[in-house]
Amino acid sequence: MNEILLKNVYTEGRRTDILVRGNIIAKIADGIEAPGAEVIDCSRMAAIPGFINMHTHAAMTMTRSAKEDMKLQPWLQYIWKIEAHFDEETLYWGNKLACLEMIKTGTTCFNDMYWGVRTAARVCDEMGIRGVHSYCMLDNGDMEKAEKERRALLHAFEDSKSFSSLNMFAVSVHAPYTVCEDNMRFAAMFAEQNNLLLHIHLCETEQEIIDAQRDWGCSPVEYCESLGLLSDRVIAAHSLWLSPRDIEIMGAHGVTAVHNINSNLKIASGYKFPMEELMAAGANVTLGTDGCGSSNNLDMLEALKTAALLQKAWRKNPEAIPLNTLLKIGSENAAKALGLNAGKIEEGRLADIALIDMNNVWFTPNYDFEANLVYSANSSCVDTLICDGRIVMRGRKVDGEQEILDNAAACAERLMSRINS
Amino acid sequence: MNEILLKNVYTEGRRTDILVRGNIIAKIADGIEAPGAEVIDCSRMAAIPGFINMHTHAAMTMTRSAKEDMKLQPWLQYIWKIEAHFDEETLYWGNKLACLEMIKTGTTCFNDMYWGVRTAARVCDEMGIRGVHSYCMLDNGDMEKAEKERRALLHAFEDSKSFSSLNMFAVSVHAPYTVCEDNMRFAAMFAEQNNLLLHIHLCETEQEIIDAQRDWGCSPVEYCESLGLLSDRVIAAHSLWLSPRDIEIMGAHGVTAVHNINSNLKIASGYKFPMEELMAAGANVTLGTDGCGSSNNLDMLEALKTAALLQKAWRKNPEAIPLNTLLKIGSENAAKALGLNAGKIEEGRLADIALIDMNNVWFTPNYDFEANLVYSANSSCVDTLICDGRIVMRGRKVDGEQEILDNAAACAERLMSRINS
Repeated sequence: MNEILLKNVYTEGRRTDILVRGNIIAKIADGIEAPGAEVIDCSRMAAIPGFINMHTHAAMTMTRSAKEDMKLQPWLQYIWKIEAHFDEETLYWGNKLACLEMIKTGTTCFNDMYWGVRTAARVCDEMGIRGVHSYCMLDNGDMEKAEKERRALLHAFEDSKSFSSLNMFAVSVHAPYTVCEDNMRFAAMFAEQNNLLLHIHLCETEQEIIDAQRDWGCSPVEYCESLGLLSDRVIAAHSLWLSPRDIEIMGAHGVTAVHNINSNLKIASGYKFPMEELMAAGANVTLGTDGCGSSNNLDMLEALKTAALLQKAWRKNPEAIPLNTLLKIGSENAAKALGLNAGKIEEGRLADIALIDMNNVWFTPNYDFEANLVYSANSSCVDTLICDGRIVMRGRKVDGEQEILDNAAACAERLMSRINS
Repeated sequence: MNEILLKNVYTEGRRTDILVRGNIIAKIADGIEAPGAEVIDCSRMAAIPGFINMHTHAAMTMTRSAKEDMKLQPWLQYIWKIEAHFDEETLYWGNKLACLEMIKTGTTCFNDMYWGVRTAARVCDEMGIRGVHSYCMLDNGDMEKAEKERRALLHAFEDSKSFSSLNMFAVSVHAPYTVCEDNMRFAAMFAEQNNLLLHIHLCETEQEIIDAQRDWGCSPVEYCESLGLLSDRVIAAHSLWLSPRDIEIMGAHGVTAVHNINSNLKIASGYKFPMEELMAAGANVTLGTDGCGSSNNLDMLEALKTAALLQKAWRKNPEAIPLNTLLKIGSENAAKALGLNAGKIEEGRLADIALIDMNNVWFTPNYDFEANLVYSANSSCVDTLICDGRIVMRGRKVDGEQEILDNAAACAERLMSRINS
């Protein structure tokens, strides 16, 4: 069985050796000997769990830098116009580019919401990182479209049964305001019956709260609860505009909230994410980047820093969200949400590991590794990435990188020429 | 004379050639031929002006990661305890480390406020980037100390006359609340007589505004104006808590404000920096990182992104601070403040140039270079840095880098052992 030995690596406050056997962290101890193992000298490196990006639209990486400094509605119109011209090639290279970026920034798993589930899963196999792929239901109240979406979901679910172990299938409903009540109930039931995760956009903007009161006489969270949609299988992207009652409800059902700070700031949706309150209520708090249309990159380390800075700033409390809490948000809490035996450097866990190069200015001096990782470094400090026991990046080199960049750029050019023709 | 030819480089929206002769951008045109010039193939690179970091305490890089998640007052007590143990060696390696980091992140000039002006200037000569070094006056109302500070300023000024052209001397007063009225007036007069810049911490926290009303019956800005301190030579770090009248006053005097968003967020000082209002009033708006004690790094590209995101978020306007305005804050406005003929890629300007590598995920697709630079990339995209016509980093390699890292780390260890003994 394939073995990797991380020699003299800094992890969890000490230096030790880590032996990866197959896809598992088999042993953590000093002075491990493993003849035949591939040895990586980690005397200037630290091992951390690979990041888990809990809210992405990976193929939208193809829209990176397409439109900037624009208000939400005209921006959305433009993005939808681009997306209408997405074809199989765009999905493929968009996913390849997204996976390449995630690998380069230390992410070993992402929770995606988009179309082209099979293509995304194929790309994860090629690139070697994990993906949770959800077919995104969206009907805007059109009953004919709603029926089609149900059939498409069933089809995608059947199709997903041949996915490799790197991939997981999930249900997603775009949002309570874009999916009819019937399909909300259907998605909830389908997820429960098949033990699938349910991914949804929830309470991203203040306007949604106002509209919900008008349409349903309650908050979006209360509306979801009334439909029987909430459970600990639900992953609620954004969860930004929540009343104390909403927070209580999310906590009671053990819902996972995904904070997307950079996207929220850039589109000016808000920033007072109730992180402490959700945790106190029993909800699970995780982190995502959102798609590259709104947030421009998929960099989880950057997202961790911005999330912590904003919590400290709006709460007027520099002690808010200390580093040990913060780092769990980037991996451990997410693994829990996905039912994935990863998210910690611990014997018996899946070997999803980022090796951090500390031989640079960002980690000098290095009084506090975690502080330097979050507040000083940027994601170029990720030297090597191991996912499922396989090395997917080594010394910042990823197999086929140049080909992906060239093909994605060419594909983007063709996409734009279709839009402008 | 030394010549560098940047072949086929992307700049200001087009591809062209740039010829650097001596320390000047001599020519920008297509198909330049320059036999004998060092040629850099820039077909995958862009040229931007080197960043100018307008508020640093460079040697404090030695306190990076020393204390985290702490309220302002206990944090300051701890930092002061560390600083009391700074010696010549700490200043030297602290400045070396800071310059190395600035070079790696595309900064060609920094406006510093600290002690050890001569050491800092020597380090700038060794590292090849520009520094504005101000002796920081601080007396806490102690008249004996105030007299000493005046003499120290005179001494430092005399000493600075032998500085190389990379270095500039400035006056600084720590803050209105830590410097007595006599020395505030003295500093202003001294700066005017000797045509020096005057660097000051101004309106960083809400408490300062409350204390100023108690002590002087007016705002800190009004107090400074009453002492004749304000002019277009004044560089006011933070300028965060300003009344409409303060903004008017700063505009009328053409004061330069330095926004330090990451430091302000992390210490929870505030984030509603009146950027548009200051510009509209005629003040000059620039950007800084503050020292690594509070902000943890000296990364201007990161600071630009955070500054733009926060302006959009608290103003609830995604159109706020568009990219062309934002990028000027990072270089052109700063060059103007310092009276430095840099900050733009233009014939006749000083050759302070950062070459950006676009052959990576951050710039794929590349519909909008500036958007990708600020919102997608991190500072590892800076491939090559030219300052004063000399290449100080090439392919991300800086001469003597490992020696600086090793010595700074060893020096930090000795510093901590002095503190803990």
